[in-house]
Amino acid sequence: MPDPVWHKGRHDTDERIMRYLAGDDVVLDRVLFPYDLRASAAHVGGLARIGLLTQEEAAALTQSLDDLAQAFDDGDFVLDDSYEDGHSAIEDWLTRTLGDAGRKVHTGRSRNDQVLVATRLYLRDALDTMASRCRESAAVCLERADAHKGVPMPGYTHLQRAVVSSVGAWFAGIGEAFIDNAALALSTRDWIDANPLGTAAGFGVNLPLDRAYTTRELGFSRMQVSATYAQNSRGKFELQALTALTQALMDVRRLAWDLSLFMTAEYRFVTLPDRYTTGSSIMPNKRNPDLVELMRAACAQPQGAIAELQTVLALPGGYHRDLQATKEPVVRALTRGIATLDLVPALLADIAFDEARLAESIDASMYATDRAMELAAQNVPFREAYRQVAAELDRLGDRDPAASIAERVSPGGMGNLCLDALRERLTSL
Amino acid sequence: MPDPVWHKGRHDTDERIMRYLAGDDVVLDRVLFPYDLRASAAHVGGLARIGLLTQEEAAALTQSLDDLAQAFDDGDFVLDDSYEDGHSAIEDWLTRTLGDAGRKVHTGRSRNDQVLVATRLYLRDALDTMASRCRESAAVCLERADAHKGVPMPGYTHLQRAVVSSVGAWFAGIGEAFIDNAALALSTRDWIDANPLGTAAGFGVNLPLDRAYTTRELGFSRMQVSATYAQNSRGKFELQALTALTQALMDVRRLAWDLSLFMTAEYRFVTLPDRYTTGSSIMPNKRNPDLVELMRAACAQPQGAIAELQTVLALPGGYHRDLQATKEPVVRALTRGIATLDLVPALLADIAFDEARLAESIDASMYATDRAMELAAQNVPFREAYRQVAAELDRLGDRDPAASIAERVSPGGMGNLCLDALRERLTSL
Amino acid sequence: MPDPVWHKGRHDTDERIMRYLAGDDVVLDRVLFPYDLRASAAHVGGLARIGLLTQEEAAALTQSLDDLAQAFDDGDFVLDDSYEDGHSAIEDWLTRTLGDAGRKVHTGRSRNDQVLVATRLYLRDALDTMASRCRESAAVCLERADAHKGVPMPGYTHLQRAVVSSVGAWFAGIGEAFIDNAALALSTRDWIDANPLGTAAGFGVNLPLDRAYTTRELGFSRMQVSATYAQNSRGKFELQALTALTQALMDVRRLAWDLSLFMTAEYRFVTLPDRYTTGSSIMPNKRNPDLVELMRAACAQPQGAIAELQTVLALPGGYHRDLQATKEPVVRALTRGIATLDLVPALLADIAFDEARLAESIDASMYATDRAMELAAQNVPFREAYRQVAAELDRLGDRDPAASIAERVSPGGMGNLCLDALRERLTSL
Amino acid sequence: MPDPVWHKGRHDTDERIMRYLAGDDVVLDRVLFPYDLRASAAHVGGLARIGLLTQEEAAALTQSLDDLAQAFDDGDFVLDDSYEDGHSAIEDWLTRTLGDAGRKVHTGRSRNDQVLVATRLYLRDALDTMASRCRESAAVCLERADAHKGVPMPGYTHLQRAVVSSVGAWFAGIGEAFIDNAALALSTRDWIDANPLGTAAGFGVNLPLDRAYTTRELGFSRMQVSATYAQNSRGKFELQALTALTQALMDVRRLAWDLSLFMTAEYRFVTLPDRYTTGSSIMPNKRNPDLVELMRAACAQPQGAIAELQTVLALPGGYHRDLQATKEPVVRALTRGIATLDLVPALLADIAFDEARLAESIDASMYATDRAMELAAQNVPFREAYRQVAAELDRLGDRDPAASIAERVSPGGMGNLCLDALRERLTSL
Repeated sequence: MPDPVWHKGRHDTDERIMRYLAGDDVVLDRVLFPYDLRASAAHVGGLARIGLLTQEEAAALTQSLDDLAQAFDDGDFVLDDSYEDGHSAIEDWLTRTLGDAGRKVHTGRSRNDQVLVATRLYLRDALDTMASRCRESAAVCLERADAHKGVPMPGYTHLQRAVVSSVGAWFAGIGEAFIDNAALALSTRDWIDANPLGTAAGFGVNLPLDRAYTTRELGFSRMQVSATYAQNSRGKFELQALTALTQALMDVRRLAWDLSLFMTAEYRFVTLPDRYTTGSSIMPNKRNPDLVELMRAACAQPQGAIAELQTVLALPGGYHRDLQATKEPVVRALTRGIATLDLVPALLADIAFDEARLAESIDASMYATDRAMELAAQNVPFREAYRQVAAELDRLGDRDPAASIAERVSPGGMGNLCLDALRERLTSL
Repeated sequence: MPDPVWHKGRHDTDERIMRYLAGDDVVLDRVLFPYDLRASAAHVGGLARIGLLTQEEAAALTQSLDDLAQAFDDGDFVLDDSYEDGHSAIEDWLTRTLGDAGRKVHTGRSRNDQVLVATRLYLRDALDTMASRCRESAAVCLERADAHKGVPMPGYTHLQRAVVSSVGAWFAGIGEAFIDNAALALSTRDWIDANPLGTAAGFGVNLPLDRAYTTRELGFSRMQVSATYAQNSRGKFELQALTALTQALMDVRRLAWDLSLFMTAEYRFVTLPDRYTTGSSIMPNKRNPDLVELMRAACAQPQGAIAELQTVLALPGGYHRDLQATKEPVVRALTRGIATLDLVPALLADIAFDEARLAESIDASMYATDRAMELAAQNVPFREAYRQVAAELDRLGDRDPAASIAERVSPGGMGNLCLDALRERLTSL
Repeated sequence: MPDPVWHKGRHDTDERIMRYLAGDDVVLDRVLFPYDLRASAAHVGGLARIGLLTQEEAAALTQSLDDLAQAFDDGDFVLDDSYEDGHSAIEDWLTRTLGDAGRKVHTGRSRNDQVLVATRLYLRDALDTMASRCRESAAVCLERADAHKGVPMPGYTHLQRAVVSSVGAWFAGIGEAFIDNAALALSTRDWIDANPLGTAAGFGVNLPLDRAYTTRELGFSRMQVSATYAQNSRGKFELQALTALTQALMDVRRLAWDLSLFMTAEYRFVTLPDRYTTGSSIMPNKRNPDLVELMRAACAQPQGAIAELQTVLALPGGYHRDLQATKEPVVRALTRGIATLDLVPALLADIAFDEARLAESIDASMYATDRAMELAAQNVPFREAYRQVAAELDRLGDRDPAASIAERVSPGGMGNLCLDALRERLTSL
Repeated sequence: MPDPVWHKGRHDTDERIMRYLAGDDVVLDRVLFPYDLRASAAHVGGLARIGLLTQEEAAALTQSLDDLAQAFDDGDFVLDDSYEDGHSAIEDWLTRTLGDAGRKVHTGRSRNDQVLVATRLYLRDALDTMASRCRESAAVCLERADAHKGVPMPGYTHLQRAVVSSVGAWFAGIGEAFIDNAALALSTRDWIDANPLGTAAGFGVNLPLDRAYTTRELGFSRMQVSATYAQNSRGKFELQALTALTQALMDVRRLAWDLSLFMTAEYRFVTLPDRYTTGSSIMPNKRNPDLVELMRAACAQPQGAIAELQTVLALPGGYHRDLQATKEPVVRALTRGIATLDLVPALLADIAFDEARLAESIDASMYATDRAMELAAQNVPFREAYRQVAAELDRLGDRDPAASIAERVSPGGMGNLCLDALRERLTSL
């Protein structure tokens, strides 16, 4: 993040324009670089198959791209602002190492389809990672749901104590949410899993590119057919990946909100290991749940990125440079969002509930619904049962919370969490 | 839409609070009412299966719900603000017609799971409709792509004339977008196709509700298992339906943008039948593409609704009344958004391209990329070919646009639209 | 809100297009109608001043507009969908009552500047109302801050108990927020207080319209000069009014959040009169803070409307029909948002704090910061004082919360709320 | 921007948590650092005035802060991730250079009010810069409006040719927009110009801090009184600064849109110097208006940042760590947004209009409204005049565009741009 630009009067217009056009492109391209290299290798293979590269040229190019990937990985090659962007860095490297053959890697493709394919591979990887983290989180939840299914805790609606619930039910609810989030990440992955490489600037080229080959080689499940659409889909697929991320992070927000409440002096339901909390700069008495709070805020970034993309994408058909402005919010939000999801499985495993405190917090009125249902089962119309119980709330005090849980036998209810069904769905994803 | 509330000083606080709590709920419930009735019938069937209703009671309730559905459909029953909401209207009807048996329909369910299941059925229906409209739009596009695949038109990037394209390619690109939009609507439909009925207020009930039966009866592909999660998913599934809608409407926006440009005096590529245009109140010379412009704006509504929901959903676990505020943006955006999608297939069919004007608009420089590729195919490194052609732009004027299209043989390119592949994918959805 | 459009196959394209073009325009115009009438009367006066209407015509038109305003107010004239919109309803009324003279009211103006001026007057009114409600809310807060300035309550950061605070400080903080919100509404009002009437469709007209007269007559503080800009400002001023509303409603959200927590069984700091709470449909034991929760959600609507407008406004210069899509979100969000602000002053007055419960909730560690500051005042470097106190937290128990408040003498601190300064600023707005 | 976190399995939880908590804080603090130093110096002065620092200590601290500011400015002090954030870097520097006296700078303040005051100063500066750039842009526009007021160009509504307009009118419209934007930036500046320093963690301190002194010293026009409100205003003032930026950038978007159209082969109204355009990687024939397109996209970033903040701010009262997540979107959007505004005055000055091409593009029908108004001025009811002209559109061809402009005498119309009034308002800001 540079100093405020407005403090600098020394640049002339041309320099400022150049800087403005470049933006942070090359820095962002560090994330896309490995994908760009991989797609470039596939393109080389495709050109060889239609005779536009000799086998020797193709082998040399492939080797050189591998070398660059290795050098980048090892930190020996640094993608910095001496390059305009990652694409020109690749061309520069190939030309330096291979001369004219290096220049041929651009035959039949444009920077536009190069960006498209690298971004597509990156999104696919990110969605796979999201799905994995969501699955891991779900697995922890289902395990803990099983372990704590008999531990009573107050169940809330409107933040008001409502009926007896259980720690296990709390975990099961989060678990099923993460199963859905994993399923969404995977179906989004399938939806975007289409190869745009070979569409050039949106009109195709007068070369018989072997797109079926590059599609297979890059592991895509299908070709994105229309060259026109390939360009027009810039941002469209990114939006959907951000939406899948937002959904998962909104459940992280709810989880973090619950923990934030459960850790107050007023609730005291939950403690977390010290590494999750920090002190205050002015108040010596404080241990603050900073991590949980930052995780609560984490869905803001993909939501902001979605808003940003939606504004950028208000365009007619065809490529426009505006579309470059989609890159930064996408990379930023996915990087930070996945860093959040990375922390969730351990957090879920580390939550310690205070069972005694939970038990204390269950008051007699929380059996009212149970009692009304019992009356209903005895054929009292529910509306009447409701009125009857409302008048005898204080006579419910000798009930047992464990029994209240056990009797809630409707499928998915506190006494019948159906964890097997959830485990089965998780495994089937 | 009422008069500005601030003009009215005459209400006391209690009346204003009642009005504020009610909002437009009952009006919105007109859309959800048929789904609420259907789910109520399934609930009645389920109660009968576990012996909480006799067969006679169940039959009477089912009949009465059918009668109400019919009366509502015929306009004989009007859901107006004499009712608090649709749910109480149903209870009121059943109690009036059946007495005590009517009151029993609420056994084992809460208003919360009633709202959840009605909304779920509504969303599923809306997503099916979106998918249908997208499929129809795609079908029109593929047909017209085939018919016009040889008609040259300028291809643009940055709104600058770039290379020769074709009317067919323009349609094919839109067609593939709508195939993807249909696929997204369908996978979203599958993702939300889970039955929340039987989860009560988020904790289940102490009755052995037959949720497997209501799941089948309502045509859901699975049960939403966890009662806790059922509550916490309020808004989550709505968001995803709005996202699927937004994606389709963003492609409508691009289409409308193109048409808006193509209908200017500067382009003159396209005309639309008179019913799509209107006059001006002050300028006698104008025919304005109002419909196309409103369709261009249509994605704003689901985008606004998404932003609205995201704000509402910033909550801890459990039901909160805030969640009622998700209903209005969802119903509003889906209603208006689908009205937009309804118009797209006919619009696509009605666009008339002016082939002579299109041909006129192709200038010699638009063959430059073709020429550079030819040189590349003759083994001139692309970067050199590029420089060579840039120096001879004026010598490209005797080329033929149809040939330029025909030679663009890369799959998905102008000369090889691969419409069969697209048709096959459309059919397979 | 109509039934889902997709259930209706019976309309032909033309009818559907007409319905789509109309949208809910005429219903929304009910809100703008009085402003449109007022601006029309000013326009009539202006035309008379430049001789385009005789004094008799002008008098007749003015009278007829007054009659219509009265009829509308009395409910004798209903603006329904027999009219295309409010503007055509006015023209229709004038022509029916006055014949040819009625038709002359459109001389020198277009529907566009008619919409602009009516909307501007409406926004100005709405901002005035927002400012009033914010001022009233601030006044209640400052009064209650004074009354409760010595009542200790726990002060929180991170929802963790931090230092001793006071009920008065809680009210003072909300009070100053509403002073700022009132100031913002007023400066926004001033910013938009510019007359667009007389700019026609964005190019002016070949008539010497007396815009200075209509500016004065409509109480605008300045003319919006450029006819081009008048068109291009459609939506721009609306956005700023929505932002002012959002700011106020975000403070309502924080207030509602605090109350929602303070009313839980865990905090029990606050009670509200029964009219603010409701029961549950399934749980006989519940009293739920529904109103507070709906008020917490209220900022979602203008935030959604802002997102909606931002998308619509992605346009080149000049009027486009897309801009019609700005009307609905603006009217909807302002109407509902002001209905929320209407409830705030009474709510603030009705909050009852439980002083005993507040006192109970203050534990010894909450004096740690006080103690560290005392050491710092005795010249112990603060970082050392901090460490020293952290080691002796349990020895702070005999301190007095009232003293802790009284000693917090920094201006704006708990012991020095500077209410006079706040009152003075409130009065000066 | 780091590599995707998900590629790294090697970190243990604690390291990942530490990294997650830190985020990019220290990098973002580079922008806030000079403001933090300035506020720290004011705090030192304030402590000396109440005897908590000796004059010698205060002088030494002030000198050391000055030295650090100088070292930072010269690049001799680098704020990198060896520091937790800018605040700890300052404390570290002071302690290293001054020992115990260095530690005293934290007396009576918390990191929270340090962040608040630094951010406030930064926002104030940013708003001043926005206002300056908007004023400069307006000044260029008014000058060019004057120079080109007689140059005819087509006036558009719905992108359809409507009536004769002028290049001067186009500039005047943009000019008045930027005057409004400057006014908004300034009133926003005034609104946020309140000193939060001295409010500690939201409860004040038990020291008689001289907040009036620091308010004067830092050039604030008033004190933000309530300590509680100071914390709760985090993000609130940032939102308003982002809104002011968005408004200016939305006018940049409209301007960029117009230029983007005017530079097409279809319009050919405008050319820009080469430094504003770039070539294509695949199409040798292209000069693309990349800069204009990136400027068109620029409002997306503050809009995204607003959405991001709105989500973060959904919190109860008091500080929460979530609020740290407001920093990045604000710094990012203001930095990039002001870089955009920096380019606007030169861009406006550099636009060259092709007068011949503009003249060619005016067709006979564009006089229709003029003619209808003339008839209206001769007392033909406008609705009749309209119909009459619609029937004789082809007979309008011998009219003169310059006359059409000149006759449009309504104030702000094409023939009466009222530039003096606009200049006067600009000067008065």
